[in-house]
Amino acid sequence: MAGSTFGKQFQITTWGESHGPALGVVIDGCPAGLPLSAELIQPYLDRRKPGRNALSTPRKEEDQAEILSGVFEGKTTGCPISILIRNTSQHSSDYSEIAGYYRPGHADYTFDQKFGFRDYRGGGRSSGRETAARVAGGAVAALFLKELGITVQAYTESIGDVKINPFSCNFDDALTSPTGMPDEDASKRAEELIAKCKEESDSVGGVIRCRVTGVPAGLGEPVFDKLDATLGKAILSIGAVKAFEMGDGILGSSSRGSQFNDPFCDRDGRIGKMTNHAGGTLGGISDGDDIVFRAFIKPTPSIYQTQKTVNKQGEEIDINIKGRHDPVIVPRAVVVVECMASLVIADAVLCSLGSRMDLIRKFL
Amino acid sequence: MAGSTFGKQFQITTWGESHGPALGVVIDGCPAGLPLSAELIQPYLDRRKPGRNALSTPRKEEDQAEILSGVFEGKTTGCPISILIRNTSQHSSDYSEIAGYYRPGHADYTFDQKFGFRDYRGGGRSSGRETAARVAGGAVAALFLKELGITVQAYTESIGDVKINPFSCNFDDALTSPTGMPDEDASKRAEELIAKCKEESDSVGGVIRCRVTGVPAGLGEPVFDKLDATLGKAILSIGAVKAFEMGDGILGSSSRGSQFNDPFCDRDGRIGKMTNHAGGTLGGISDGDDIVFRAFIKPTPSIYQTQKTVNKQGEEIDINIKGRHDPVIVPRAVVVVECMASLVIADAVLCSLGSRMDLIRKFL
Amino acid sequence: MAGSTFGKQFQITTWGESHGPALGVVIDGCPAGLPLSAELIQPYLDRRKPGRNALSTPRKEEDQAEILSGVFEGKTTGCPISILIRNTSQHSSDYSEIAGYYRPGHADYTFDQKFGFRDYRGGGRSSGRETAARVAGGAVAALFLKELGITVQAYTESIGDVKINPFSCNFDDALTSPTGMPDEDASKRAEELIAKCKEESDSVGGVIRCRVTGVPAGLGEPVFDKLDATLGKAILSIGAVKAFEMGDGILGSSSRGSQFNDPFCDRDGRIGKMTNHAGGTLGGISDGDDIVFRAFIKPTPSIYQTQKTVNKQGEEIDINIKGRHDPVIVPRAVVVVECMASLVIADAVLCSLGSRMDLIRKFL
Amino acid sequence: MAGSTFGKQFQITTWGESHGPALGVVIDGCPAGLPLSAELIQPYLDRRKPGRNALSTPRKEEDQAEILSGVFEGKTTGCPISILIRNTSQHSSDYSEIAGYYRPGHADYTFDQKFGFRDYRGGGRSSGRETAARVAGGAVAALFLKELGITVQAYTESIGDVKINPFSCNFDDALTSPTGMPDEDASKRAEELIAKCKEESDSVGGVIRCRVTGVPAGLGEPVFDKLDATLGKAILSIGAVKAFEMGDGILGSSSRGSQFNDPFCDRDGRIGKMTNHAGGTLGGISDGDDIVFRAFIKPTPSIYQTQKTVNKQGEEIDINIKGRHDPVIVPRAVVVVECMASLVIADAVLCSLGSRMDLIRKFL
Repeated sequence: MAGSTFGKQFQITTWGESHGPALGVVIDGCPAGLPLSAELIQPYLDRRKPGRNALSTPRKEEDQAEILSGVFEGKTTGCPISILIRNTSQHSSDYSEIAGYYRPGHADYTFDQKFGFRDYRGGGRSSGRETAARVAGGAVAALFLKELGITVQAYTESIGDVKINPFSCNFDDALTSPTGMPDEDASKRAEELIAKCKEESDSVGGVIRCRVTGVPAGLGEPVFDKLDATLGKAILSIGAVKAFEMGDGILGSSSRGSQFNDPFCDRDGRIGKMTNHAGGTLGGISDGDDIVFRAFIKPTPSIYQTQKTVNKQGEEIDINIKGRHDPVIVPRAVVVVECMASLVIADAVLCSLGSRMDLIRKFL
Repeated sequence: MAGSTFGKQFQITTWGESHGPALGVVIDGCPAGLPLSAELIQPYLDRRKPGRNALSTPRKEEDQAEILSGVFEGKTTGCPISILIRNTSQHSSDYSEIAGYYRPGHADYTFDQKFGFRDYRGGGRSSGRETAARVAGGAVAALFLKELGITVQAYTESIGDVKINPFSCNFDDALTSPTGMPDEDASKRAEELIAKCKEESDSVGGVIRCRVTGVPAGLGEPVFDKLDATLGKAILSIGAVKAFEMGDGILGSSSRGSQFNDPFCDRDGRIGKMTNHAGGTLGGISDGDDIVFRAFIKPTPSIYQTQKTVNKQGEEIDINIKGRHDPVIVPRAVVVVECMASLVIADAVLCSLGSRMDLIRKFL
Repeated sequence: MAGSTFGKQFQITTWGESHGPALGVVIDGCPAGLPLSAELIQPYLDRRKPGRNALSTPRKEEDQAEILSGVFEGKTTGCPISILIRNTSQHSSDYSEIAGYYRPGHADYTFDQKFGFRDYRGGGRSSGRETAARVAGGAVAALFLKELGITVQAYTESIGDVKINPFSCNFDDALTSPTGMPDEDASKRAEELIAKCKEESDSVGGVIRCRVTGVPAGLGEPVFDKLDATLGKAILSIGAVKAFEMGDGILGSSSRGSQFNDPFCDRDGRIGKMTNHAGGTLGGISDGDDIVFRAFIKPTPSIYQTQKTVNKQGEEIDINIKGRHDPVIVPRAVVVVECMASLVIADAVLCSLGSRMDLIRKFL
Repeated sequence: MAGSTFGKQFQITTWGESHGPALGVVIDGCPAGLPLSAELIQPYLDRRKPGRNALSTPRKEEDQAEILSGVFEGKTTGCPISILIRNTSQHSSDYSEIAGYYRPGHADYTFDQKFGFRDYRGGGRSSGRETAARVAGGAVAALFLKELGITVQAYTESIGDVKINPFSCNFDDALTSPTGMPDEDASKRAEELIAKCKEESDSVGGVIRCRVTGVPAGLGEPVFDKLDATLGKAILSIGAVKAFEMGDGILGSSSRGSQFNDPFCDRDGRIGKMTNHAGGTLGGISDGDDIVFRAFIKPTPSIYQTQKTVNKQGEEIDINIKGRHDPVIVPRAVVVVECMASLVIADAVLCSLGSRMDLIRKFL
């Protein structure tokens, strides 16, 4: 596969460039009978869309989801669901210049090396705008999981050196916080940092944490398709993500076994774990605990400072990037992380429990 | 796929349990004409095999590779290569006890939840011994890459809180160092730490860094099958790995764009980069620079201290694990990391350049 | 995969129902640099579209291809190509009745069994209209093959008991013949037969033969992904096709080895075959000769006679189907067969020669 | 995938050449808890193995199945099942000659074109011996289906021009008949025909019919992965099969809709069909009726007459093939057809109902 398809049984295929007429996704394998409409998908797209507040690019995209197939009388039919999102706010002229040189931190050079030429307008297929299609697809997965009592919730844990205090958080606030931080105080400090970055024509990175609750024990596969591995792939395939951690995996690498092992215990008559350093999987299979992971996001590569680079002829030049760019990607990436995680869990459900809603419900 | 197959064009399928008669791998898609023999594979298996020194389990496995198909007159035929590794040092009786309870940090509970019962002897399919088959498969990928001038080299960067000094390393020493550390001084301190862990009936984790050199620009796919994502999946599918980082991805999440962006430059008439924070990919596609990543490895879950857990009936109990276990997995995992990375790069080569050695050579 | 995706490296994903707003296809893996436009695709869709002549359904669909992504400055970019075809001539009211019963020869019953309910309008996803999306995708494959000097040409060999005389054919006439028969005399007799079927409120089946020329020797895989097998799957996945034959395979089953074997010979200094009973493959791999196969197509299941069937409650009833249906599917299926064959060959090219147009050209 | 793997959820990977040390199969995705042993698999291999009677090659292979993984305490564990079959009766010297020329009807030439060279001993990977591994894998699928009440039964319908009389058959006789024909009279005539072919240093083809009973309605996928298409691929991937027919598909192509449509009816309170021309699928999904298809098998290409061909240099030569070959492949292919069909149905069960035996049983 050429890499625009994700998932085995619950599968999405995305398409579209930043400055083409539209982007979209085809969701194949979603079980029949799930209530679905554009209205149910829209809140996910709204969380990702630019221009919601001062922190993000002034570019305004409506990002309206249009469902073209796979839904009949308000329910999924089991056949592919095609969702279209029109591009409405393209300023392609901003990009004519970049046709001739390679922006640092962007895929301009590698696309030219791979494909021989590229749609340079706004980064084309390599633009972060591509994630709108993932979100539309992942929203369907999230809605499917919700039906089964499984929820996926991500939030911003840090931006630059500003970290939330996990003990003073209301995690639902992540949905309304401009930074995605569920900690009002930290969020304000992060806003100040972002404002400073903007002033300095710079950008900043951050960390997103995600928690999946309600996953039954026994999902995932033992060897190459461990839940950890598939989640890792899903999250690392998001453009700006450069590291992935299950549970306390990074800390674990400098810990002792006696600290990192999670003892099993009796939790109200069911088997549970006293701690969850593992992040909800053992041997790559869900253990019934929350699935917890983190995504490490690099600073937006588009900055307004003069940068050194080369042109297509390989000559060293100084450039000043134009266009409208987020000084930080993290807040808008929170829902992208949720959606990719939803796709992984939905796929694991189908691989294990099949594609019939009646049968899946019998198990869960 | 049920998860014992990895790769699209250069593909391996592994099988085997810790205490069955044998383990093995089928490599499908390896181009024809590659010189191959059991002797060429053996050094890779030897680097992984237990009992090489005082740091690892006293269990001794010969881990002899037997090639059963796909090689004719010393060269690969393009047909599946089946490699068999016999299990020779099983003490299954060590494990009869664990049939009835769930070891913390192990997959006993999740296997029972997924499959209804399990081969409990030595962890069965979830044993680290499974990686022997990956190494046999990955060795073939590594040999293929070597033919193309691509080398994959991993080493231990840290064990517990002992870190190498990257400026005083000879990276080739990783092959002979008992800890996999290419820094004699750090390695000695790590040995002391491991000895202390053993004494305290405890275990410890660590970090492995891997570098792939000679990868041409333009490999990998733009969206879901980014090289970062596929490498991440490959590495996170290794049992004890709980986090993955491309380049300086973790540090990048608290950095500025002006720090993290790698400026392009003219390097002796070819396009290069002044720094490599990205780790050798841009937009998921190789940029011609070294591909660099890290794997974070948890402490061995089998420790000889009394641990709390539950039995199959869900009753809380205290257990004392028997058997022969490594106090640290890291040194033996170095070659596993190399092998998984080799599989990813070999697959990316084939997806882009096809499966004919003559044509691949024309490009490279 | 849930079955709306076809191909490994040159891959299409289709979506859409007979009476939804649109149908479409996403083509992933098409090499970059191929000239492409809606105008180049349209002739393929025109050959399939209904209402072209008296032989087909009076339903008129414009079937205009709209390219939404993957093409920049008139050439493919290597990124997914999304093509949209709007539905413009739906008379959904014709179908309200069929919601309650199961038409013989249709998928009404099996969709209800699989999905629990169905979009009954015009057959929904199981409608022959679904093939419009395949044709749009296959057209891109055919254009790619044309660039490489490979041509795919199908024609109607028989309708009912009317057969062409292969010795008095001009195969290019298939493109303009109303029956798809490249034999004027046979075509006229077939038209008469079809007219008679219409009169009798009946329908009729037929056979399509396809020939692929210019395929280099060495494409395809030896075991499960034999070219024969993949072509067979591609063709048998077209709704009305119920049998598939490579070369003279059916006759071969009652022949002797001395008759069926194709002797190799020297053909102008290159290795050729004296005959081609095998149909252009040996051991599942192309032998450099023309690839020749046949598709056997069942009569249109929608006939205007009173038919016996059951309603959703399982009660036996008599029905009279309404709507606008072709008395014979064969003429419109010719281009569908070509397109599916093109997809298989294009995929085999990429699997063997990679995805870089420069490298593929070096080989061919 | 390079083509030695088949199936999505119930998946096999085969390996091995005619004259290597062994052949084998890895079965991944078989649900846990299925009783399995080498003894249960052996009868399937025995039906395929050569030298059982005067009709087949005098080559004697023991074809003993050895299970190396995936079975614990007599039951499958859900982990990959590796089965090994040793080659014991190789006369490689018979083949030294064929290294230099291309046998008509064999894959010698195409392997050289694809791979650059080949393991010429006994056809290497392209030998019919490859099917032993499929049978071992398919036997496990058949045993799994048997547990669910689904049976797969194939038999020889014709050899050359000798056909069985379907009205005087006891289909279970196919298991003991030397020709695989469940009609004693026809079988005797077929034996005479085969004897005559042998005398004349010739070979002959035939047709195998297969029937799958007990398949619930609703299996298969609507578009590319129709049950017809997947069965077709499975069967056409068997070396000597050159045509495939679902139900009465060939006859259907010259029939009327009023003849070919299968009317639904009430069958003892359940929905059934009055006829089964479709062969048990509608829209590619099982309709609850028997699944019926035919495989058309070419004459053995190895014949003892002098044949014309070319050598590796392209020079025309006369050859006389040595070795030990079946004058007809059909009787030994019957179980291969059954096994491939079993794999397809088992996979369709898992894709629809998941991989948990408890859940599958709840549905069936």
